[in-house]
Amino acid sequence: MHIDRVAALDIGGTKIAGALVDGNGRILVRAQRPTPAQEDGESVMRAVEEVLAEVAASPLWSGATAIGIGSAGPVDASAGTVSPVNVPGWRGFPLVERVREATGGLPVTLVGDGVAMTAAEHWQGAARGYDNALCMVVSTGVGGGLVLGGKLHPGPTGNSGHIGHISVDLDGDLCPCGGRGCVERIASGPNIARRALEGGWQPGPDGDTSAAAVAAAARAGHPVAIASFERAAQALAAGIAATATLVEIGIAVVGGGVANAGEVLFAPLRRSLRDYATLSFVQRIELAPALTGTDAGLVGAAAAAALGSRDEETATIGG
Amino acid sequence: MHIDRVAALDIGGTKIAGALVDGNGRILVRAQRPTPAQEDGESVMRAVEEVLAEVAASPLWSGATAIGIGSAGPVDASAGTVSPVNVPGWRGFPLVERVREATGGLPVTLVGDGVAMTAAEHWQGAARGYDNALCMVVSTGVGGGLVLGGKLHPGPTGNSGHIGHISVDLDGDLCPCGGRGCVERIASGPNIARRALEGGWQPGPDGDTSAAAVAAAARAGHPVAIASFERAAQALAAGIAATATLVEIGIAVVGGGVANAGEVLFAPLRRSLRDYATLSFVQRIELAPALTGTDAGLVGAAAAAALGSRDEETATIGG
Repeated sequence: MHIDRVAALDIGGTKIAGALVDGNGRILVRAQRPTPAQEDGESVMRAVEEVLAEVAASPLWSGATAIGIGSAGPVDASAGTVSPVNVPGWRGFPLVERVREATGGLPVTLVGDGVAMTAAEHWQGAARGYDNALCMVVSTGVGGGLVLGGKLHPGPTGNSGHIGHISVDLDGDLCPCGGRGCVERIASGPNIARRALEGGWQPGPDGDTSAAAVAAAARAGHPVAIASFERAAQALAAGIAATATLVEIGIAVVGGGVANAGEVLFAPLRRSLRDYATLSFVQRIELAPALTGTDAGLVGAAAAAALGSRDEETATIGG
Repeated sequence: MHIDRVAALDIGGTKIAGALVDGNGRILVRAQRPTPAQEDGESVMRAVEEVLAEVAASPLWSGATAIGIGSAGPVDASAGTVSPVNVPGWRGFPLVERVREATGGLPVTLVGDGVAMTAAEHWQGAARGYDNALCMVVSTGVGGGLVLGGKLHPGPTGNSGHIGHISVDLDGDLCPCGGRGCVERIASGPNIARRALEGGWQPGPDGDTSAAAVAAAARAGHPVAIASFERAAQALAAGIAATATLVEIGIAVVGGGVANAGEVLFAPLRRSLRDYATLSFVQRIELAPALTGTDAGLVGAAAAAALGSRDEETATIGG
């Protein structure tokens, strides 16, 4: 697609990043601050303003036509507010209004971070050219977003594609969200590590109990580590198949730290997908690792802003 | 919406119905044949042609601008073919082409029966006025369809919203579709009855072991009958919550024979929905019984045809 130069914010529990992004998805200017996640809401906003001020100091800023925000969720795009789980000082925080004020009235588009990553993958990554796609991030949590009918589908509040919190195990373990057997409760990095430890896997001399360490053990043939990834893959497959059965996606793109495990995750994921994606219209679903990296949040927020600033009915990305 | 007069076909495993439907969703002419489900494909098509000939014999036929087909699935709208599970003589049967030939070249729109029911509920029923809705039929099977962004969302092959075959119990019982723990495997009428019988419920002197008989027993306070409906409601709630979490629906409309159980189903369904629809953007989802009755398939096929015969980007129903 053709997009103008736009500004972007990527807001997470660890860092707040800002950028100017050009029409080819290249980052022209960037700035970053740690998120003062345990401080009050105004302190967090001050960090956002510092990032924006640093980006706006660039001579290129004057060409920016809009600003996109991808934020840790939940977000409420219809109200313009965010309530990131890991930023307790922000509950119903009017981020859209505050960013509009801080940028001299630029049009602001807010989406969840999973939707932003999806916009990036559809524009620049593995979902490019697909009219119907699920893109997901498997990391500390499990998030995602949807492309439907050739267009990003943020939904009314900007949260669509929230695959981490659909239940695939209705009698399963309680999830911090209040549900049971959510995909995230089974497939996130911390849950992969927890299950391996509970099964008797022990970390090496460095004491690393991350999912990456479990992946290394699985690669070396440790059966408990392999089983923990297989269980995660089963939950992801059930969630991907559910999404395909509900909205007919052609591809599922999987990114995030846990996806870096490579075939340790993707091999059982492909197998399990055959078990759950059974109906004729979902059997041909493709599976691919994400191509956009750590900048996906910024690039995707820019793409969402470019879409949000024009007629939704005619905007398409990926072309 | 304003629609022209259109023809409609509703094709199921038991009967084939045809109609002329006016712009207000009224049925002007109708015809029906039993489905010769166990005969060869050409015999089934002959029944379709007889239904069409009877409808076309009406003097009103000359005003018909399009024909919509709602068919038992799976369907493939992109190929124009149907393969209804209960009509073994039709496997990849080119129904769209054959109906076009039989109607002198009218534009034909094919959707799955769950999508057709959804079109009817959005046009005339409980989903009217909602931009984002899931409509479902809980009966011998469990089907459904989606309205997204104010428009029917059939998906590329006409099967979107197929909620009966998403897994909500990834280690659960095998489903005839090949998956495990599908919503239909837990919540369909036959499965409600099976579970009640397995739990020790016994039918009355009339020997009726239908889900309706289990509902009557539940209404009379039989704990096993109540528990079987509660389990069905739990699976439906997990499926509805998953749909809301994935695509942000404002209402879930539940129809079909099992929904006739009324509060025996809806009371535990409302309770279970609170357990699974936990994220802020799905907590306010509404739940309503379907309003369109046995003609939903015909009315919905007509609505789908009216949408299919105009620019997809501008067509809306429900307004």
